[in-house]
Amino acid sequence: MSHNSFGHMFRVTTWGESHGPALGCVIDGAPSLIEITEPEIQHWLDRRKPGQNRFTTQRREPDTVKILSGVFEGKTTGTPISLMIENVDQRSKDYGDIKSKFRPGHADFTYQTKYGIRDYRGGGRSSARETAARVAAGAIARKVLGDGVQIKGYLTQIGDRKIDRSRFDEAEIDKNAFWCPDPVMAAEWSEYLDGIRLGGSSVGAVIEVVASGVPAGLGAPIYGKLDSDLAGAMMTINAVKGVEIGEGFSAAALTGEENADEMRKGNETSPRFLSNHAGGILGGISTGQDVVVRFAVKPTSSILQPRQTVDLEGAETDIITKGRHDPCVGIRAVPVGEAMMACVLADHLLRHRGQNG
Amino acid sequence: MSHNSFGHMFRVTTWGESHGPALGCVIDGAPSLIEITEPEIQHWLDRRKPGQNRFTTQRREPDTVKILSGVFEGKTTGTPISLMIENVDQRSKDYGDIKSKFRPGHADFTYQTKYGIRDYRGGGRSSARETAARVAAGAIARKVLGDGVQIKGYLTQIGDRKIDRSRFDEAEIDKNAFWCPDPVMAAEWSEYLDGIRLGGSSVGAVIEVVASGVPAGLGAPIYGKLDSDLAGAMMTINAVKGVEIGEGFSAAALTGEENADEMRKGNETSPRFLSNHAGGILGGISTGQDVVVRFAVKPTSSILQPRQTVDLEGAETDIITKGRHDPCVGIRAVPVGEAMMACVLADHLLRHRGQNG
Amino acid sequence: MSHNSFGHMFRVTTWGESHGPALGCVIDGAPSLIEITEPEIQHWLDRRKPGQNRFTTQRREPDTVKILSGVFEGKTTGTPISLMIENVDQRSKDYGDIKSKFRPGHADFTYQTKYGIRDYRGGGRSSARETAARVAAGAIARKVLGDGVQIKGYLTQIGDRKIDRSRFDEAEIDKNAFWCPDPVMAAEWSEYLDGIRLGGSSVGAVIEVVASGVPAGLGAPIYGKLDSDLAGAMMTINAVKGVEIGEGFSAAALTGEENADEMRKGNETSPRFLSNHAGGILGGISTGQDVVVRFAVKPTSSILQPRQTVDLEGAETDIITKGRHDPCVGIRAVPVGEAMMACVLADHLLRHRGQNG
Amino acid sequence: MSHNSFGHMFRVTTWGESHGPALGCVIDGAPSLIEITEPEIQHWLDRRKPGQNRFTTQRREPDTVKILSGVFEGKTTGTPISLMIENVDQRSKDYGDIKSKFRPGHADFTYQTKYGIRDYRGGGRSSARETAARVAAGAIARKVLGDGVQIKGYLTQIGDRKIDRSRFDEAEIDKNAFWCPDPVMAAEWSEYLDGIRLGGSSVGAVIEVVASGVPAGLGAPIYGKLDSDLAGAMMTINAVKGVEIGEGFSAAALTGEENADEMRKGNETSPRFLSNHAGGILGGISTGQDVVVRFAVKPTSSILQPRQTVDLEGAETDIITKGRHDPCVGIRAVPVGEAMMACVLADHLLRHRGQNG
Repeated sequence: MSHNSFGHMFRVTTWGESHGPALGCVIDGAPSLIEITEPEIQHWLDRRKPGQNRFTTQRREPDTVKILSGVFEGKTTGTPISLMIENVDQRSKDYGDIKSKFRPGHADFTYQTKYGIRDYRGGGRSSARETAARVAAGAIARKVLGDGVQIKGYLTQIGDRKIDRSRFDEAEIDKNAFWCPDPVMAAEWSEYLDGIRLGGSSVGAVIEVVASGVPAGLGAPIYGKLDSDLAGAMMTINAVKGVEIGEGFSAAALTGEENADEMRKGNETSPRFLSNHAGGILGGISTGQDVVVRFAVKPTSSILQPRQTVDLEGAETDIITKGRHDPCVGIRAVPVGEAMMACVLADHLLRHRGQNG
Repeated sequence: MSHNSFGHMFRVTTWGESHGPALGCVIDGAPSLIEITEPEIQHWLDRRKPGQNRFTTQRREPDTVKILSGVFEGKTTGTPISLMIENVDQRSKDYGDIKSKFRPGHADFTYQTKYGIRDYRGGGRSSARETAARVAAGAIARKVLGDGVQIKGYLTQIGDRKIDRSRFDEAEIDKNAFWCPDPVMAAEWSEYLDGIRLGGSSVGAVIEVVASGVPAGLGAPIYGKLDSDLAGAMMTINAVKGVEIGEGFSAAALTGEENADEMRKGNETSPRFLSNHAGGILGGISTGQDVVVRFAVKPTSSILQPRQTVDLEGAETDIITKGRHDPCVGIRAVPVGEAMMACVLADHLLRHRGQNG
Repeated sequence: MSHNSFGHMFRVTTWGESHGPALGCVIDGAPSLIEITEPEIQHWLDRRKPGQNRFTTQRREPDTVKILSGVFEGKTTGTPISLMIENVDQRSKDYGDIKSKFRPGHADFTYQTKYGIRDYRGGGRSSARETAARVAAGAIARKVLGDGVQIKGYLTQIGDRKIDRSRFDEAEIDKNAFWCPDPVMAAEWSEYLDGIRLGGSSVGAVIEVVASGVPAGLGAPIYGKLDSDLAGAMMTINAVKGVEIGEGFSAAALTGEENADEMRKGNETSPRFLSNHAGGILGGISTGQDVVVRFAVKPTSSILQPRQTVDLEGAETDIITKGRHDPCVGIRAVPVGEAMMACVLADHLLRHRGQNG
Repeated sequence: MSHNSFGHMFRVTTWGESHGPALGCVIDGAPSLIEITEPEIQHWLDRRKPGQNRFTTQRREPDTVKILSGVFEGKTTGTPISLMIENVDQRSKDYGDIKSKFRPGHADFTYQTKYGIRDYRGGGRSSARETAARVAAGAIARKVLGDGVQIKGYLTQIGDRKIDRSRFDEAEIDKNAFWCPDPVMAAEWSEYLDGIRLGGSSVGAVIEVVASGVPAGLGAPIYGKLDSDLAGAMMTINAVKGVEIGEGFSAAALTGEENADEMRKGNETSPRFLSNHAGGILGGISTGQDVVVRFAVKPTSSILQPRQTVDLEGAETDIITKGRHDPCVGIRAVPVGEAMMACVLADHLLRHRGQNG
């Protein structure tokens, strides 16, 4: 049991606070002889990096990753891979308000209650800054999975505005600030979020992550189901309040006939499925189809609108959260969701090999 | 790592197939000196028992539980509690079709692919019959939590028909076949499901489980978050395709102001929250409010409508799943969802005590 | 974390008390398609069975094993294998003394202190009867390892009498009541133990377990070392007080030159080692040589000689442990040690396959 | 499952190689509000530091520890504590021989076989340098245990020379280079080891670690026994080949009467034990007496005497291990054994609190 680790065969332990000297992760179980370099990990970190446009926090962090162990002459050795990212732009001068008041929607009250102490600077351990370590781990996970598995995340909804699936164009995803596959909606979101941002408000989002090329057979019933591990993994991401696989909540309204993914003659190892309501997972095991996960992110809790709260002594007060924040934290959750998908799949690949290889 | 266990301090391992001689579970980590009797466990099993009305499978199983270890003179001893339920009504004479064909929506194809063998009788290990063991474990978990924690599940949606929250009456839940808190909708569902059942079809559902009296402080960031564990736990239940905490997917459409659960002066240990969009969990730790989880169950995959599929050799064919099945498996998922809630909370209670007690 | 489980990929959970209705185990992670039958498991249980000669407890237990799950048409399915052994000859009429007094050397005082309750009948969970479940699990582990790996245990010492290695003859092991490879010492032990037994006393022993055919590469540094897992596993066996690998404690008195296992040209995958001081493990990883483990078992704590103790209220008293006991529990520890070796190796085989396969 | 972690509630993950940029550990599960500073950790690291006298390796490492996370304003916050020690004196210029030849007694052959690659510089991950991270973790573990628990290690044997227990004086331990409680033997060892060192040879040792003040009740039967966890923990230390609890292997030669630790009236919570053959553990649970563990360390494998071996291609050759090495690695194993004792006890303290608190 470890509260700060996930995975079993491919096991990631993260550490670090928002305003401490550094953060990082230790990856245990990666196979040996995998070629990996700092620039390859940096590539994925740069996608998550804050301050890249006006819709994400203006904190300036280079998020430069260092490999401290587990890689020798450019290859993994089978020993733990320690990755570290130093914090540079903490700006922790003034924390008066956060120090003594509980911000609604944040973990201030619960950390204080559980631990009797909290590193209030930038939210400490509960800050989304921790997800940089996951993205670094995800870079290794992608290497474990190999090029045959491709993982792609994007936003399908910001606030109440959803993409139009008929305009879905994967090539658009990297062309806008929102990882939006619908260019029309990308433009609309831009305007919409400007309003939210200037009003000192925030808004939620829905992210979809798709993994293609996943071999059939990954996942371990009953309590190591691939969908269970994905749901648990996505729910660990800051501000996530819901997770769906494939059809998700919409499946409740379907009939058995509608929801059945019928099969026709396929290749040697697999039938051809006529649909993918299941999101690529049946009985907790991958079918070989695309694995499709969606998760909902609540609006950023740090807003400039005053909210009622109490202070450490329980006295009533108001709070406004000044500082550098994302009007929609869901945007930066995309690379994190991809990383979690990669880590869960890598873990199950190794587990499958162990029991069934 | 164990594919058939869940929890850490309160750890449950289940075993058994739909048509084997028995099924059961081993519960490890329950504190000593808890009074527990077979009738107390039986009480909860009876709520899940099949064949209680025309909306659930007509398989007749008494589901009689036996305590095989861990209880001495009516009290737990701190050693593993082994519970066994013998299968009585297997009727495993005729399985020709299931044996050689993959049923869409079932785990037939994935088990066959992963393991190269499957116990096709009634779905084997992938059958929802396994959930009887969870309900038995949940009975122990409730005792660990004590009377201060109350857990209640109910349906909020069958097919596309949702309850009207303004008619919500907890007293109604146990009065109808659907664990429905809205008496008007209960009547509507009855008629609606009769049509589904007679048409040889099936339909999905949404279940909500609420735990009240949960102390603040349960849950362990970052990767042992209470919501993450609940999401993972619910997603292990057969046919579940989505999980939400509190506001869930609706949170995506809210602004930060709307979603903030404001606080006013409360008692010595906790403020008074003015709302509960968070579902009782902030930063992965319980706030002391009701813990609210919702999950979506897909329509029963076993239907009398023919669907296209392939057989073990990959040849194209059709399949109709005869047998005794639930027109809406979501109904019987209610006691299972409650049990998973109880087990997760019991686990986190002991974990919290260990690190923070 | 589970206090009653061991292994990771090949994971065994045992349950049951000495005088409860049954005991058993759940084996999770065994690969599918392994042929296994009840008689094959029974074969190993029969070797451990009590009452086979005058040197072991006269309790009469058939120790008949039943497979309750995980095996279909004679083959494992990849799902958990539940094995159960019903207790038959409990004779739990009279426990007055044990109920209220702490037996020196037994777990009576510590269980009572830790749990505030204990099943005093036959020692409850702390009874060596629990090891029947391990032997059953070991039978499955041997099948996972395959015929290429042979595991053999034997006694090298009873009381202060050690075998003469120059008379070592593996064929002798199964020919006497002591799993003794030295026929001269077997005769001596027989006479010696008769004296111990008739005097109401008991004596300790040393057991050696050797696994041949273990492939090089099993074991996972740093904290999943094969020798660490073997040491931990053997130390869980009742009454064990010491564990050695290869040269063991004698290595302390050697020089580096003496202890070095020199290498000469071998086959394609491995050099030829000129000695095996290391006991087949270097850096926690198997070398391909015989894996050699030794463990010391203390004298049976249940003796007919009165010993000073206290009762539940702390008052001073004496105790004599009547009943059916082994004059040397070390004898029956042989099949248990073999089973633990098999389980640890099977676990590491699957782990190795997962990370390195 | 993690190959580089140990403990459950108090969980330590170590990383780093002998000649990489740094090594360190992440400690997960330490309770909050524990005061801890870098100098406090440094105190214990300094005891293990190499190069302090002529009997240990002359590598000059300051072993300066940095706290990177989990401590805020001098107190633990309940979040993971990341500790880092930078490597300074690697001297990795010349590794020609080690790179291509397998050193007998080292992990060269097994790492190469398992992983197909190895960081040969100073033994890479298999170097005893990794134990610095354990000592740092042990410093935190001691704080978790509090001042009531005292842990003390010392040597009882170097080569074939054992201390005389009648001369045992705890005050002597810190006064000589050997952690030797017998001043006469300390002088003898000094002379003896000078001979070993100058002859380019090495020799083994036996270390004893005693924890006093351990409360009764720690340890979790059956597979989380305190003695099992201690045995497994000590066996992970480099070069350890045997572990004993209390009487250890000598118990084999005792009778039941001799080995019984008789009890007399004690205080409210515990009887008074008249002896401690059990080493403070019965049935895997602490009795409240001193917990006594002993482990044997083989002679340093790196020696100046030529030994026969093979190279990476399997060709026969000889090897002499030049470099800075310990004539008796057992000496520096003392602080490591203490640290492992502290970590195991801290883990069991938290586990006990969780289930029984």
